[in-house]
Amino acid sequence: MNANPDNDVIDLTDYMHRLGMQARVAGREMARAETAAKDAALQAMAGALMDSLDTLKRENARDLERGREHGLNAALLDRLELTDERIATMAEGLRQIAMLPDPVGMIADMAYRPSGIQVGRMRVPLGVIGIIYESRPNVTADAAGLCLKSGNATILRGGSEAICSNRAIAACIREGLESAGLPANAVQVIETTDRAAVGEMVRMKDFIDVIIPRGGKGLIERVTAEAEVPVLKHLHGVCHVYIDDEADIDKAIQIAFNAKTQRYGVCNAMETLLVAEGIAMQVLPELAGMYAEKGVELRGCETTRRIVNGIEAATEADWDEEYLAPVLAVRVVKDMDEAMAHIERHGSRHTDTIVTENISRARRFLREVDSSSVMVNASTRFADGFEYGLGAEIGISTDKLHARGPVGLEGLTTQKYVVLGDGHIRQ
Amino acid sequence: MNANPDNDVIDLTDYMHRLGMQARVAGREMARAETAAKDAALQAMAGALMDSLDTLKRENARDLERGREHGLNAALLDRLELTDERIATMAEGLRQIAMLPDPVGMIADMAYRPSGIQVGRMRVPLGVIGIIYESRPNVTADAAGLCLKSGNATILRGGSEAICSNRAIAACIREGLESAGLPANAVQVIETTDRAAVGEMVRMKDFIDVIIPRGGKGLIERVTAEAEVPVLKHLHGVCHVYIDDEADIDKAIQIAFNAKTQRYGVCNAMETLLVAEGIAMQVLPELAGMYAEKGVELRGCETTRRIVNGIEAATEADWDEEYLAPVLAVRVVKDMDEAMAHIERHGSRHTDTIVTENISRARRFLREVDSSSVMVNASTRFADGFEYGLGAEIGISTDKLHARGPVGLEGLTTQKYVVLGDGHIRQ
Repeated sequence: MNANPDNDVIDLTDYMHRLGMQARVAGREMARAETAAKDAALQAMAGALMDSLDTLKRENARDLERGREHGLNAALLDRLELTDERIATMAEGLRQIAMLPDPVGMIADMAYRPSGIQVGRMRVPLGVIGIIYESRPNVTADAAGLCLKSGNATILRGGSEAICSNRAIAACIREGLESAGLPANAVQVIETTDRAAVGEMVRMKDFIDVIIPRGGKGLIERVTAEAEVPVLKHLHGVCHVYIDDEADIDKAIQIAFNAKTQRYGVCNAMETLLVAEGIAMQVLPELAGMYAEKGVELRGCETTRRIVNGIEAATEADWDEEYLAPVLAVRVVKDMDEAMAHIERHGSRHTDTIVTENISRARRFLREVDSSSVMVNASTRFADGFEYGLGAEIGISTDKLHARGPVGLEGLTTQKYVVLGDGHIRQ
Repeated sequence: MNANPDNDVIDLTDYMHRLGMQARVAGREMARAETAAKDAALQAMAGALMDSLDTLKRENARDLERGREHGLNAALLDRLELTDERIATMAEGLRQIAMLPDPVGMIADMAYRPSGIQVGRMRVPLGVIGIIYESRPNVTADAAGLCLKSGNATILRGGSEAICSNRAIAACIREGLESAGLPANAVQVIETTDRAAVGEMVRMKDFIDVIIPRGGKGLIERVTAEAEVPVLKHLHGVCHVYIDDEADIDKAIQIAFNAKTQRYGVCNAMETLLVAEGIAMQVLPELAGMYAEKGVELRGCETTRRIVNGIEAATEADWDEEYLAPVLAVRVVKDMDEAMAHIERHGSRHTDTIVTENISRARRFLREVDSSSVMVNASTRFADGFEYGLGAEIGISTDKLHARGPVGLEGLTTQKYVVLGDGHIRQ
């Protein structure tokens, strides 16, 4: 499907390799770029977006019209739409990235060794980062901003439904880069909507250092299966709150309610509530009433259904489900060990919380639960780059290698060893 | 080739999957294991090796005999041999690992956020680590020790030429694990010499979290090409020393001599010497004399050959060569920019050094050279886990993601976020 009639790329492999080579060259320049130039580019990009409100909305209208013709549903059309407010938010995001400290060149742990040399680790860009994402055009600006600040070149591949919007945003980004004297190819948006471009992109080992897919399970599975370039995955979140029998009842109810209802369609929302049998009678009836009032559908185990009347039975499949909706699976467990075994078996290693006043259990839960975020007495909704103080986030990694949990500027860099001597030789 | 007649594994896939599942179960136990138990196991493993000198040498003799029958050359037979001294060194290595601080559970950067939650990062094991290596049986003990201390389970695949030695060492490791009450399956040595086992191993995504190949280029290329499990690569080292025209001449000569001649067959030895034209006359004649005395063959560019008589011309291929031998390519360059361009084009991003007294050039070289170790006025031979204070190393990563440069216990772990609240919910 070629959704865009303006588009006539002749040889896809050639085109993609040209982008790759240009990114490699720009990446080397970006690694050396001074902090002031990068920050100036970010500010200029924000300015260009605000100066282009009309163009951006006109190009976005073309995407929306084509989307309607292709029968996109209301939710997708809403995600696709650029309003004045959303454009202002994009611009503000870029300004905030400009204000973050530059991670590139930071030297950590510099120390003298017995041989007399000094050894430390300098933070440096990864090189070229490929981002593959769906529908929301604001990712174009956010991802470009984070990669730019961390000294990387970026190749962006947005959804075909947003191609006109993404091109218009890319023009603003390019304007910002050029006005700050940085290479325009530091951020390149793939201009074709040909789906085969993704296949080419994920195999360009020589030109791309890491691929970050942002989108639904289908996209991430396709990218992972085809990729030869390393992938930083952001998989689904089947997050748990476990209410221990030594929990403070008020905290337990507040956290379980917040983790489910503060927002539904996000990966750090709770999908399964686990309750120790010793406290189930004290928390479940009240919680069930609160959920009912909010319109949250409960699906319970047998014990839960004896305590809360009139709810559906959870099937085995419910424990593995990421609802992203006002639906919650509830299970009464014997104790923390049974809760941890449930999380081990059904969780997605994203974010899990224990509510307890017992410090020995809190210590064990923190150490033994193998998830990217493990919490005590806090809502799973805090698993977020902004809340953690990263300043911004490009996603939440459920991988273990390289970066785990919310990924900010640091996750887009690596460290090299730096050694200072004064003529030192190895004995 | 099935080099070992005792060996009759029926279904390789079944066998490998059983190892994988056992490793997964043992890995969970190891992640929880107390520091004292891990250290006791390491000490007991060292004790068991020292108590088994006769058995180890007898089994090793079988490998050596088979090696001779198969026509292994003297260098390979030497690497394969276990002497009393080499066994004592293995045992001492395990005792040293026991003495290193346990990285598991260390919490870094714990800080209060504006929301009131505390956020930090806890170091945790990767899970199951697969090691694929060649000939030297001491890797069996070293790799097992490092993976054990970092709380991981390990599957080890040694070379078929060392199978009897590796099994005997594995028996000592198992004895040590059991005596400390740790799961014997925390370290498993693949018992078949069937080459297809490597192919199975690198595709066991569900059971292995990372593969570390240790060996020649052929092994690493094969593993990388076939692997579905992430690979932490340790590629070759085409390391450079650049002597700047503002170098201290004595330091330059000492470093260039040490980096090439202190040991030849190692990845951090210098393979190409770059010399600024302004200083070439002052350093090259003396250095050439020193190299000649040591029996190092020089291959030079045209300018080098005008300064040093009677040496061979370097071909284009020489600049990309990892000799691992008493051979050195020498090139005279205009200045640091030309040196950095040469390193960018021909280096393997392992370790590169500048010799200069000029701090502005040192700063630029440190920032701009994209190698796992970048040095000023120090021999490339320092690029080593022990010299850097890691206590031990499992290899030197030339990858950028996850771990770069010498990899010690930290590189065998990851970090998860830990969040402490007191009933905190997201607003």
